[in-house]
Amino acid sequence: MKDLTVAPRIIMTPGPVEVDPRVLRAMSSPILGQFDPLFTEIMQETMNMLKLVFQTNNRWAYPVDGTSRAGLEAVLHALIEQGDVVLVPVFGRFGYLLVEIATRLGAEVKVIERPWGTVFEPDEVVQAIRKFRPKVVAVVHGETSTGRMQPLADIGRACREYGAYLVVDAVATVGGVEVRTDDWLLDAVVAGTQKCLSVPAGLAPLTYNERVERVLESRKRVERGLWNLEEGAVPDAPRGSPILSNYLDLAQIQDYWGPSRLNHHTEATSMLYALREGLRLVLEEGLEARFRRHRQCEFILTEGLRAMGLALFGDPGCKLPVVTCVEVPPGIDSQSVRHMLLHEFGIEIADSFGPLKGRIWRIGTMGYSCRKQNVFALLGALGATLRWHGFPADTASALAAALHAAKKTEAWEDAAQGAAFPSSQRIREHLAGV
Amino acid sequence: MKDLTVAPRIIMTPGPVEVDPRVLRAMSSPILGQFDPLFTEIMQETMNMLKLVFQTNNRWAYPVDGTSRAGLEAVLHALIEQGDVVLVPVFGRFGYLLVEIATRLGAEVKVIERPWGTVFEPDEVVQAIRKFRPKVVAVVHGETSTGRMQPLADIGRACREYGAYLVVDAVATVGGVEVRTDDWLLDAVVAGTQKCLSVPAGLAPLTYNERVERVLESRKRVERGLWNLEEGAVPDAPRGSPILSNYLDLAQIQDYWGPSRLNHHTEATSMLYALREGLRLVLEEGLEARFRRHRQCEFILTEGLRAMGLALFGDPGCKLPVVTCVEVPPGIDSQSVRHMLLHEFGIEIADSFGPLKGRIWRIGTMGYSCRKQNVFALLGALGATLRWHGFPADTASALAAALHAAKKTEAWEDAAQGAAFPSSQRIREHLAGV
Ligand SMILES: Cc1ncc(COP(=O)(O)O)c(C=O)c1O
Ligand SMILES: Cc1ncc(COP(=O)(O)O)c(C=O)c1O
Repeated sequence: MKDLTVAPRIIMTPGPVEVDPRVLRAMSSPILGQFDPLFTEIMQETMNMLKLVFQTNNRWAYPVDGTSRAGLEAVLHALIEQGDVVLVPVFGRFGYLLVEIATRLGAEVKVIERPWGTVFEPDEVVQAIRKFRPKVVAVVHGETSTGRMQPLADIGRACREYGAYLVVDAVATVGGVEVRTDDWLLDAVVAGTQKCLSVPAGLAPLTYNERVERVLESRKRVERGLWNLEEGAVPDAPRGSPILSNYLDLAQIQDYWGPSRLNHHTEATSMLYALREGLRLVLEEGLEARFRRHRQCEFILTEGLRAMGLALFGDPGCKLPVVTCVEVPPGIDSQSVRHMLLHEFGIEIADSFGPLKGRIWRIGTMGYSCRKQNVFALLGALGATLRWHGFPADTASALAAALHAAKKTEAWEDAAQGAAFPSSQRIREHLAGV
Repeated sequence: MKDLTVAPRIIMTPGPVEVDPRVLRAMSSPILGQFDPLFTEIMQETMNMLKLVFQTNNRWAYPVDGTSRAGLEAVLHALIEQGDVVLVPVFGRFGYLLVEIATRLGAEVKVIERPWGTVFEPDEVVQAIRKFRPKVVAVVHGETSTGRMQPLADIGRACREYGAYLVVDAVATVGGVEVRTDDWLLDAVVAGTQKCLSVPAGLAPLTYNERVERVLESRKRVERGLWNLEEGAVPDAPRGSPILSNYLDLAQIQDYWGPSRLNHHTEATSMLYALREGLRLVLEEGLEARFRRHRQCEFILTEGLRAMGLALFGDPGCKLPVVTCVEVPPGIDSQSVRHMLLHEFGIEIADSFGPLKGRIWRIGTMGYSCRKQNVFALLGALGATLRWHGFPADTASALAAALHAAKKTEAWEDAAQGAAFPSSQRIREHLAGV
């Protein structure tokens, strides 16, 4: 079997994306035992940094050892008991994922839907909350399948008013776009590592507040193999029904991350090194500066794509800054274009799912992949590839417009001195008016 | 926040253990997209190597992206439906883990127990199968909490005879001790990465045969967000009840690892690089040679411990070669000894759980940590530490005996020319007779 061979790639998908070399280096550190004080310190530091990135004062923030959907499932496991009403506003594939998980857990799932490419008016969701009186509302913040972003603050307020728990899939947004856990009254938020945090896939960082913690307390069970009968440590009988999963049981995982360090699973040592380093990089850059960098790259990319003669997909009023969806021009083979980009240029962009499969390209500008240099490379490569496929792409204009846009954002940044950088939407309106 | 700082450690616990530098290096390779042909090739190569390590001709062998217990839970999820009878022979903590998982899944769990430190006579299990007629028998092969190993071949035959599925927790044994998936008629086997495979924790490699695959087929559901309605790809209505977990749904994960590459989660890129390299190292060494190395280190260690004046815990007839349990001498503070080993010598050994907490030390000789040099270092350190704590450890004799044992095993190896290396038990009997 040959040595591991990895070609250099420019990854401009909605994840997994490129990882900062510092994160790769952290991962190559030797193993520490899971109860080694040096390791539990790393756990604690990671928890502290996660709270800053989630913009929360919650007591708990830690990763589940699985990919992002494991984190989503863990949170839903914690909150849902057989027959509970769960409301899921769906506007893309990952909304259906929440439906899927909740259904398998035995919830009575109420689905409201919006066409792919749009999001909900907050009031539509509030009306549905009033109507269904759900125990849990589960919603996607950044829907990568369609490149849309759902505003959450009004939904947060309504959930609090009607006593529902609000669970948010912020897998695509945390680290790249503002996610205000506390200000928006989000009860539980799940992030992704392989997106705007630029850490390899395999962990699901999450946070939850006291309301969720109380539910966990009521459903907690300690594994029989950990009872120390001689010390009389038979745990109190729990009040709530048991959480259906042992692996994704946040009540136990919390005890492992808490001061009692009660053994649950074996923490994924090297992945935790990676997450710690990824979070350090986020905080060194600063959240505000990081969000600005993501909006700058989005602006450069979208200006270039438009100048090339391509149409962006979806409602611009709710565009997700870190994923740009482009309509595949009529008569162009979407797969063939992606194939050429990868094999001739070493650049990866994504297809979509379900009804949008083959109809749009999804271009990610996330984390370490979100660099001007990547955007310029992609625009050149895409222009040439489209021409090869018979579409009259204006590559020269695309690159000129992108460079122009890059200079514009620099000027704004200087003017704002890092303060109120305008939103993508505002930027586009502004430019349209110029 | 300071740079990640990891002290050099000699890790002689039952996992996580030290990782070969080649594995650490593989992990520092840049990310590939999950559908990049270079990456799917890595998936395929890993699958092929896993089959060799599991000694199976099964069609399926791949990791679940979670720690070992995620793999166990996934297999039990696949096989168990509400109310199914599941038999679990328990002889330590990890037997209870299987009970725990099956109970949460709604199974009617039948438990038979043996005192910690022993295993079952195969016939006891066969009798129980006859009595309870379980759909699933779930059993631990290498019980790390007590350092015992359960023979499986007779249980495999009985399960086939009575139509039960046999699920095996081989988390501690695969890569260090013989595990013959096909010969022993094991229907599903779950391995651990952070034990004898010497890869960081975070993946659960598993394999299952056609019998299990048929169950998966009958319970399969495709996520709604992946349906392409225009292509008329609404999936067939499944016959079995849905698998309760979406994340741990092997029917979907199999489709992701199979030729259709249907997207489920995002594969944990860097961890897969690590697993691939770890498996390459196993196959380069050769399974037989690797098992011999583990028995050699066990022999050296146990000879040294005895000469030091310590008693081994448990029935020697079923000792797990890769974990050696030592009784804490009366009056000695188990924690304090472990603390001194870690902080003065940089060596980690483990406590145990539940009834054995504080009563035994567990010393692992697994994977890359299983090196003569580690065993000698531990014996010296433990001898000095015990003396410091007031126990009259004979350190000099321990090291002399260990060196003597090392030379003996070399001579045997030369004589056997790598063939029939005697079992640990046989070695001890042999030496006793000399
Ligand atoms: C025998 C056995 N089974 C299962 C597990 C659980 O593995 P993990 O901690 O990787 O989930 C362990 C780990 O300690 C083990 O030793
Ligand atoms: C919005 C959103 N939610 C959830 C997921 C699932 O994440 P993972 O593949 O890490 O399980 C993704 C990943 O593609 C996503 O984009």
